[in-house]
Amino acid sequence: MRNIKLTIAYDGSKYAGWQIQATKAIPHKPTIQGKIEEALRKIFQKKIPLIGSGRTDAGVHAVGQIANFKTESTMTLDRLKAALNGILPFDIAILKAEEAGLSFHSRFDARSKIYRYIVVNQPARPAFLRSHACWVRPPLDVKAMQREARHLLGRHDFKSFQAHDRVERASVTTVQKIIVKGSNGCDTFPFLKDLKLIVIDIQAKGFARNMVRNMVGTLLEAGKGRLEAGGMVKILKKKDRRSAGPCAPGHGLYLMEVSYE
Amino acid sequence: MRNIKLTIAYDGSKYAGWQIQATKAIPHKPTIQGKIEEALRKIFQKKIPLIGSGRTDAGVHAVGQIANFKTESTMTLDRLKAALNGILPFDIAILKAEEAGLSFHSRFDARSKIYRYIVVNQPARPAFLRSHACWVRPPLDVKAMQREARHLLGRHDFKSFQAHDRVERASVTTVQKIIVKGSNGCDTFPFLKDLKLIVIDIQAKGFARNMVRNMVGTLLEAGKGRLEAGGMVKILKKKDRRSAGPCAPGHGLYLMEVSYE
Repeated sequence: MRNIKLTIAYDGSKYAGWQIQATKAIPHKPTIQGKIEEALRKIFQKKIPLIGSGRTDAGVHAVGQIANFKTESTMTLDRLKAALNGILPFDIAILKAEEAGLSFHSRFDARSKIYRYIVVNQPARPAFLRSHACWVRPPLDVKAMQREARHLLGRHDFKSFQAHDRVERASVTTVQKIIVKGSNGCDTFPFLKDLKLIVIDIQAKGFARNMVRNMVGTLLEAGKGRLEAGGMVKILKKKDRRSAGPCAPGHGLYLMEVSYE
Repeated sequence: MRNIKLTIAYDGSKYAGWQIQATKAIPHKPTIQGKIEEALRKIFQKKIPLIGSGRTDAGVHAVGQIANFKTESTMTLDRLKAALNGILPFDIAILKAEEAGLSFHSRFDARSKIYRYIVVNQPARPAFLRSHACWVRPPLDVKAMQREARHLLGRHDFKSFQAHDRVERASVTTVQKIIVKGSNGCDTFPFLKDLKLIVIDIQAKGFARNMVRNMVGTLLEAGKGRLEAGGMVKILKKKDRRSAGPCAPGHGLYLMEVSYE
């Protein structure tokens, strides 16, 4: 038996998220996990369950999602990767296929994850990037966002940033890094020239459901001047989802990296 | 009477090109010109013809397309721009609305145009950018592309690079600049990190139909080692479309800028 670890990039625009939908909530949109399991079934002629490091929501992108699956096949890693990329749609790419220890579990063994959120912050609507960044028209106060972001660092109960769910889930985790900074796009791609961007990088041991997007939504409130200095401390203390800002749209979010021991 | 000059950006992915289709060749895809004329009709309650600096093909993008139209309305330029952007779909943006002299004609008065073509040149399929760059898998010889590109500079009959058309059109023009260079994407957008790119910038007084895409297709042949040194000179001399390379796909192409006196 082998345990194969995949590193995956995907453009989430056309997907209902990572995870195969148990219910037929969004019947017309496929999922990333579903597409990869479909490809595995074609290659190995049997159903092979794929374990992802975690869900990403509808519209969320990834450049370093990790997943694993078990197989008895002796196919080489190079051939497997080529076969998967040959079957998968253009917007899902297998970047790496590696041999992992039999006990490796991409979700349980994940030690930390890095997400990036991209905001286009300018009066002019960006004609491109509709599904790849979040457009905020009024000028944001980056300093206020940085000031409030700092309070999120460290080990806390992030209940205020956790989506309501039918099941009670853990909301205590450690935010290891949070960086908010301005950027100016880049010159090579014409549609990225002279863009006014705000980039938010968040690294944490684990993320409660919708935690990144709810944090970003709250930081955007701070940027709009709707959060007093230290407001983030109060929100954390309240442990009430209603005290934090709205959930930022999924299409500005990228799963960058998942780290293991 | 006023003559209004518009500077327009658009993501061409979902359009059948700039120009309203006389025939119903591609009935399900709208055109950029069509969408803007529709918006003008809503604002001014009458049909107003829009003159573009030139067509762009299906899938081709623009960050500096120019168009003009005449009106007797006294609406301010700021209000007009806001009204257009309010009506237009997300992937078409009016960047500027300016007053032009009554005789200004965005097509006849254009003195030169700059196009950029973006090639992603790496073994790994880019999961993003399917509609915003052209993926070429085998490594291209950039030096050979630069060597052949130089022969295109200056005034020539570019008949070998002109698409066949029912009507005989001018194929003599002057290529003022042509630059081929490697690039590495950019760090801000996760999906552009560590990309291996080749960027081709072409400036000319005018372009024959499909001229940029046919030139790029021929330069790609040079990059693949399929064109001997100086092969471009022979192709120019033949004045025969069949002597040049294939037409490169529209989705890698961007209209950057149109210059006037």
